[in-house]
Amino acid sequence: MAEPRLDVIGVGEVMLRYSVPAGERLEAARSLAVKPGGAEGNTAFALAQLGRRAGWVSALPRNPLGRLVARQMRVAGVNLEGVVWSDTGRVGTYYVEFAAPPRAIQVVYDRADSCAARLTPDALDWDYLLSARILHVSGITAALSPSCLAVVRELLARAKAAGVAVSFDINYRARLWDAAEARAVLRPLVEGVEVLFCNQGDAGRIFDATGAPEAILRRLAEATGARHVVTTFGAEGVVGWQAGAFASAAALPVQMVDRLGAGDALAAGVLHGWLDGDFSRGLRYGVVLAALALSQFGDMVVTTPQEVEALLVSAGGGIHR
Amino acid sequence: MAEPRLDVIGVGEVMLRYSVPAGERLEAARSLAVKPGGAEGNTAFALAQLGRRAGWVSALPRNPLGRLVARQMRVAGVNLEGVVWSDTGRVGTYYVEFAAPPRAIQVVYDRADSCAARLTPDALDWDYLLSARILHVSGITAALSPSCLAVVRELLARAKAAGVAVSFDINYRARLWDAAEARAVLRPLVEGVEVLFCNQGDAGRIFDATGAPEAILRRLAEATGARHVVTTFGAEGVVGWQAGAFASAAALPVQMVDRLGAGDALAAGVLHGWLDGDFSRGLRYGVVLAALALSQFGDMVVTTPQEVEALLVSAGGGIHR
Amino acid sequence: MAEPRLDVIGVGEVMLRYSVPAGERLEAARSLAVKPGGAEGNTAFALAQLGRRAGWVSALPRNPLGRLVARQMRVAGVNLEGVVWSDTGRVGTYYVEFAAPPRAIQVVYDRADSCAARLTPDALDWDYLLSARILHVSGITAALSPSCLAVVRELLARAKAAGVAVSFDINYRARLWDAAEARAVLRPLVEGVEVLFCNQGDAGRIFDATGAPEAILRRLAEATGARHVVTTFGAEGVVGWQAGAFASAAALPVQMVDRLGAGDALAAGVLHGWLDGDFSRGLRYGVVLAALALSQFGDMVVTTPQEVEALLVSAGGGIHR
Amino acid sequence: MAEPRLDVIGVGEVMLRYSVPAGERLEAARSLAVKPGGAEGNTAFALAQLGRRAGWVSALPRNPLGRLVARQMRVAGVNLEGVVWSDTGRVGTYYVEFAAPPRAIQVVYDRADSCAARLTPDALDWDYLLSARILHVSGITAALSPSCLAVVRELLARAKAAGVAVSFDINYRARLWDAAEARAVLRPLVEGVEVLFCNQGDAGRIFDATGAPEAILRRLAEATGARHVVTTFGAEGVVGWQAGAFASAAALPVQMVDRLGAGDALAAGVLHGWLDGDFSRGLRYGVVLAALALSQFGDMVVTTPQEVEALLVSAGGGIHR
Amino acid sequence: MAEPRLDVIGVGEVMLRYSVPAGERLEAARSLAVKPGGAEGNTAFALAQLGRRAGWVSALPRNPLGRLVARQMRVAGVNLEGVVWSDTGRVGTYYVEFAAPPRAIQVVYDRADSCAARLTPDALDWDYLLSARILHVSGITAALSPSCLAVVRELLARAKAAGVAVSFDINYRARLWDAAEARAVLRPLVEGVEVLFCNQGDAGRIFDATGAPEAILRRLAEATGARHVVTTFGAEGVVGWQAGAFASAAALPVQMVDRLGAGDALAAGVLHGWLDGDFSRGLRYGVVLAALALSQFGDMVVTTPQEVEALLVSAGGGIHR
Amino acid sequence: MAEPRLDVIGVGEVMLRYSVPAGERLEAARSLAVKPGGAEGNTAFALAQLGRRAGWVSALPRNPLGRLVARQMRVAGVNLEGVVWSDTGRVGTYYVEFAAPPRAIQVVYDRADSCAARLTPDALDWDYLLSARILHVSGITAALSPSCLAVVRELLARAKAAGVAVSFDINYRARLWDAAEARAVLRPLVEGVEVLFCNQGDAGRIFDATGAPEAILRRLAEATGARHVVTTFGAEGVVGWQAGAFASAAALPVQMVDRLGAGDALAAGVLHGWLDGDFSRGLRYGVVLAALALSQFGDMVVTTPQEVEALLVSAGGGIHR
Repeated sequence: MAEPRLDVIGVGEVMLRYSVPAGERLEAARSLAVKPGGAEGNTAFALAQLGRRAGWVSALPRNPLGRLVARQMRVAGVNLEGVVWSDTGRVGTYYVEFAAPPRAIQVVYDRADSCAARLTPDALDWDYLLSARILHVSGITAALSPSCLAVVRELLARAKAAGVAVSFDINYRARLWDAAEARAVLRPLVEGVEVLFCNQGDAGRIFDATGAPEAILRRLAEATGARHVVTTFGAEGVVGWQAGAFASAAALPVQMVDRLGAGDALAAGVLHGWLDGDFSRGLRYGVVLAALALSQFGDMVVTTPQEVEALLVSAGGGIHR
Repeated sequence: MAEPRLDVIGVGEVMLRYSVPAGERLEAARSLAVKPGGAEGNTAFALAQLGRRAGWVSALPRNPLGRLVARQMRVAGVNLEGVVWSDTGRVGTYYVEFAAPPRAIQVVYDRADSCAARLTPDALDWDYLLSARILHVSGITAALSPSCLAVVRELLARAKAAGVAVSFDINYRARLWDAAEARAVLRPLVEGVEVLFCNQGDAGRIFDATGAPEAILRRLAEATGARHVVTTFGAEGVVGWQAGAFASAAALPVQMVDRLGAGDALAAGVLHGWLDGDFSRGLRYGVVLAALALSQFGDMVVTTPQEVEALLVSAGGGIHR
Repeated sequence: MAEPRLDVIGVGEVMLRYSVPAGERLEAARSLAVKPGGAEGNTAFALAQLGRRAGWVSALPRNPLGRLVARQMRVAGVNLEGVVWSDTGRVGTYYVEFAAPPRAIQVVYDRADSCAARLTPDALDWDYLLSARILHVSGITAALSPSCLAVVRELLARAKAAGVAVSFDINYRARLWDAAEARAVLRPLVEGVEVLFCNQGDAGRIFDATGAPEAILRRLAEATGARHVVTTFGAEGVVGWQAGAFASAAALPVQMVDRLGAGDALAAGVLHGWLDGDFSRGLRYGVVLAALALSQFGDMVVTTPQEVEALLVSAGGGIHR
Repeated sequence: MAEPRLDVIGVGEVMLRYSVPAGERLEAARSLAVKPGGAEGNTAFALAQLGRRAGWVSALPRNPLGRLVARQMRVAGVNLEGVVWSDTGRVGTYYVEFAAPPRAIQVVYDRADSCAARLTPDALDWDYLLSARILHVSGITAALSPSCLAVVRELLARAKAAGVAVSFDINYRARLWDAAEARAVLRPLVEGVEVLFCNQGDAGRIFDATGAPEAILRRLAEATGARHVVTTFGAEGVVGWQAGAFASAAALPVQMVDRLGAGDALAAGVLHGWLDGDFSRGLRYGVVLAALALSQFGDMVVTTPQEVEALLVSAGGGIHR
Repeated sequence: MAEPRLDVIGVGEVMLRYSVPAGERLEAARSLAVKPGGAEGNTAFALAQLGRRAGWVSALPRNPLGRLVARQMRVAGVNLEGVVWSDTGRVGTYYVEFAAPPRAIQVVYDRADSCAARLTPDALDWDYLLSARILHVSGITAALSPSCLAVVRELLARAKAAGVAVSFDINYRARLWDAAEARAVLRPLVEGVEVLFCNQGDAGRIFDATGAPEAILRRLAEATGARHVVTTFGAEGVVGWQAGAFASAAALPVQMVDRLGAGDALAAGVLHGWLDGDFSRGLRYGVVLAALALSQFGDMVVTTPQEVEALLVSAGGGIHR
Repeated sequence: MAEPRLDVIGVGEVMLRYSVPAGERLEAARSLAVKPGGAEGNTAFALAQLGRRAGWVSALPRNPLGRLVARQMRVAGVNLEGVVWSDTGRVGTYYVEFAAPPRAIQVVYDRADSCAARLTPDALDWDYLLSARILHVSGITAALSPSCLAVVRELLARAKAAGVAVSFDINYRARLWDAAEARAVLRPLVEGVEVLFCNQGDAGRIFDATGAPEAILRRLAEATGARHVVTTFGAEGVVGWQAGAFASAAALPVQMVDRLGAGDALAAGVLHGWLDGDFSRGLRYGVVLAALALSQFGDMVVTTPQEVEALLVSAGGGIHR
């Protein structure tokens, strides 16, 4: 088998994110800050900055908005050879109003019928995709459209056949589907994946995994047969399960600037460790990247390997061992 | 018959318009200026500022983006009682990159499947609509979707039945339909309207009306049976036909700041005159409002009756009499 | 008696507010954010967004600055038919530098001799004013100028004669008059109003009402004969008295973005409840609206009925019952 | 007699100028650019940058807005020892909307009752004022208020008594007084000044001086007994008269960015030459500074002696000799 | 010989460019727009957007400013594998004040001792460099420092030895060296290059080539033995010489937004044609790209292959054939 | 001896400071806020606003960036007669990314080879310098370059000879030199200064002064023979030693907006007291100014004597007496 060309490829929609400054309201906006965002793309973006050969695959229209997304992905050096360019269609968008209590953060999606949601398995360059060591997808992509679900299913099947690892982030989104539908689709889908990301809430919602952290992770491991399981516990930190053993990393103290994208940054950190064969270290990378994501505007974290390593020392401790 | 509650109601989509400053490119945008825009709404907005009781009707989602449009329409005092608020759906958007030659102005539409495009005749408050002296619609609305075409058809039928005048701006948009389709739909549609707006290009494209200005207008009048016909001739100005007589108004010298919305401002001026029973004066109002629209950012012109009257003196001359 | 045309009309000056971002100083400003603000106008603005037929009455000059104020009031759908437009005069202004301790918030007023301060009783459309269910004024208007005091006096007299309710917010401002003068003027003025708003400090200053919350409110009720009394206790919340009974609502946890306008938002909430005949619910609306005002830039709160209702559940508890 | 401490002192109001970008309208402003501006202050500001010991005298309130003006004057090194600081009062303001034809530039003044307009002769430090080689005032100050007129009168009288030269710019402003009043006041006032600035329009309006440039200047010289007369002829340039001889300087080709302040910059140039005893060179400095002022945002021109000298070569030619 | 990995590699400094908006002055700046710029990098940036495999090589410090440059180069997909990252040193900067006559555009350089200027031949990855079809350098790099001159010399020698083509843009900069020095260095340096770019002024200054366009190019060809010569004639357009034959392309009508970078965009267009073996077409690409560069802010042009092809039709004509 | 012309002169580099808003990263900057900053200049700037005759001396290039620094220093009325203007050279710069934990504040310096670093003793106007009551320098200047160290040495020698007091702020900067070098240079340098500023960290690093506050100050006093010693203890406050007696002032509660410049503001406060002969009061001024500096953007604090006096009441308490 040939040497993998890329370390990781994220597959899933990246949208344009429009936001107003904290303290302002969307309906009174006169100008909007523009940044790209989307779960799998966020993860690929972070990994590229850590020096990983990271690719991102989705569909974009051949217009200035499609190019806006592509240009921003390239900033970090993400490989875009697998992107499907379409002569028609739109880029999905979403609008963010940051939380200033008593108001909660408000996200308005306008993503229906995007190029990405219309992506079909036959449009993809499978040779390119299977040239990675690990593919990263999420439950969002599975929920976007029937054709996107077909993409995820074919990706999982082809990856298994080709011996390429898959990382799956459950990422349940109530605005895209209801929990029953998500359970029915996701439970069979994630069977036997290499890395499963599932936060505490989704663990209960999709896998009936509740209780103490170790119990939750054990249940997730049993239910899915995943080789690694990673569960975030709100602001507490993250716990990982691998071959019956547990590891954890406590969340770093952080000044919250922008809540979005932290989970995707965490996934990037875990995969960064996985690629080095060090899952525990990956959990610590994860909490560092998540903290960096929270302290910056934008879903996509800006960082360097040096910064992450320097912060790693503060991310050593944990409760489960 | 009761006294009309409103002078004019524009019926048709208003979108959110996102733009970058002149000299910048959309695909490199980090922030976007937000303004509302849409043909019939632009016309209603201008008329409200001239002191007319102007309403605007379309559909908006019950979310911050729908409210953003509504808030901006209210700024000028436009009556929004007829707006259809929807629990689902989106606001249409478009993106503008201003022309800096050799580049032409670039407009990217992302308007498919908006609430406005899904508007159906039964959602409308017809009593409200028929309480106006004149209803203003355009070929854009006819082209948006089958249900919008149905809205336009029912509006024309009900207005005729109720003795309410209709103003129709052809506004052919090649991105929405091809000319053959537009011809087939629009020619029967506009029969007998009170005021027909049709620029020189559309006159040839839809009505085979070409040649000298007077010939074009005469042909438009014959083809449609419209009581008033108004044709713009690029940067030259505007010519009007009424009951066999011609009037015209030369365009004002202008510093072009933003090309969009000039035609809708012109329509507002003509209707302002029509409401006073002075069609010729309306043409002169029209070129003044168009010039004001060109000299400001945004599709929707900001002005006052005093400003328009003051500029009217420079808009007196014309060639056809 | 005819059905009231409007639910509420606020009578009093709205100014232009100029501010620099937090952390910047006014004297080093190179640009200023512009927003409108003024006690009674803030209250009318909030009520209009809650679906109330709200009007606002004051005087504005017929120039771009007067129109700037009017345009912003219209954003929320406030009825401006009663505004007095003047060919001369100015719009009052004030400048805000937000608090970053050890600096306190700094407000510089430049409001003398505004059109609003020159308003006289004979300039007003009393039929319009008396067509509301309740009129809302404040001690600021009484303090602005002798002619404004005459306006307030005539308003109270005419309202009583016409059986229209009056809501009065004491709003003592030390920069406009001294406490002795305010006492002399305000105490007879507010006799028998429908709703009296008076914060803890003003209660002592103007009415010698000090001590425990209930004692303060009881004293205010006795001193004024008001049918409802509402007193805010700093960051604690609000207590109301009605016909001998007390109700209260605790303040919501809030991230302070902009301190100005919270009291006017509270008044809007209380009147929203009063208009429904539910004074207690009004207090809870009040703390919700105040919290929303504090978490947004600007004196005038941006919100929707849905948002307020959703937050109402967190505003249920209170100490006095 | 002691060596003069300063070269020139401008006496007259500096206001805060608020503007919106070209293409935007004041009444739709959400933010305003802030710059200082005022005739005599503009002139002092320019001269300070050319290395002259320039002072500026007027009154300012002891608040952030007064300090804003003072800080901006100091940027160029203008001496502010003579400024009268007041515990009460306001800074005058004006609002600018730049011209985009068919709209003309629009200036809205809100300057009534400023500290500067309330300035009285007894508040001034006359020793300081009379320590300059030349004092610069304008007809605006004479028009502002009776007390300001008293200031100008006393300044002229004291300067004459002390042998200090005076430069007077007619600067007729129709919004401040009518022409008859201005004639009555200004004609006796300017008798025998060292340098008289009067543009073509004011020459006719105030001094009945019309016709060819040389005729106008000769008439102005005769009417006033001024030792130097300087008249601008719109975009043509400037003509000067000194002891029966004429000199001129043609306007430089310019890209108009901001029309305001050009006349004050021209005065600075002329005084710069006068201070060197070279009136003709001063005219050429004047057209250079005026061109620089027109090509920059703001009333107050930013420049250096080097820049002015470099541009002087292009300002050599003229018609009158 | 192996298939070249890249089409073109530009070798030379990219700096950070700081600018103020037109009409503002650098010395009054409160904020600066940041964009990257540098001759060879500009050319590589444009070519990458046209679909060429373009690389850029220089040195950058391992700090946020170095990364800022790298991130912006990646936006267009430029390959950065050959960049030399340094633990010390700085990024060169320059400051731009746009021309508003009578002021000319002003550029203040602060580039001394940058990492790029300290680049030495041994720091470069020559295998990477020689994997391109053509290398692009300019006289700026030769002038920056002795070590940069050594880099250029070694590049030319190694390229010749390896049979890799070289494109050389004379780009004389009077602030970096005097003409005599440049002549002495550049004349031997450019002998036998594949493509020589030299504008009309430099042709006379460095090569004594003056007179009619054809005479100039013939002289340049004789003096250098270059296989292709390209000379721009101000706003007229460009003329090319190849093997004794002439071709030309007229400049496109353009709205000048930002003068910087046009020459580098022109070089990109010529090389785009050269890579296709069509030098004449390259000249036309060149004038299109130069026009696009002039109509946008920034040294680096934003475009697409589609846009360039669409504008190519207007760039057909020329005088020399 | 003549009356001193100035109260204080700060001698040392002022740079241009470029920053991105909190939450943004430098490497993703598209625009940078520009403010001046530099230890001794910051102190002079603050003192000038308190009404002191404050000068600042360093070298600046005769270009827009040099003028940018000078203009900003003049804003506060700082006397610049002693500035050395250079025809060549650069202004030092530094870049700030504000801290949002887990990220610490990040400062990137690009200050090498500035005009200021090239300053030599012979370029200075020593008569001007020695006309002040006290000269203020810091260890930064000593560390910048050998010629700057020579400047500091000559300044200390000449001041001693002329009987002019010197204030010295240790201000150790690890990026400029190592601690051993700093010890060797600074210990002899500061012998016998009038006021020594040394924070807790530097006390240990340079003078081996550790332990309890009083012990540290006593040790500093012994080691240097300084007549006054001032040591800051992080967020605790400041302790001063004078002739064997201790005084202190607790830090004010503050909302941290921008950490830079607080120490220089503290020095300004202490010198403000020293100039009045009240060292203890100076410590309290110091904590007030430091708090004001922390609550504002920029190294240079904006304030007034009134503001400082008003806050002084909250700065009374302390532990050492």
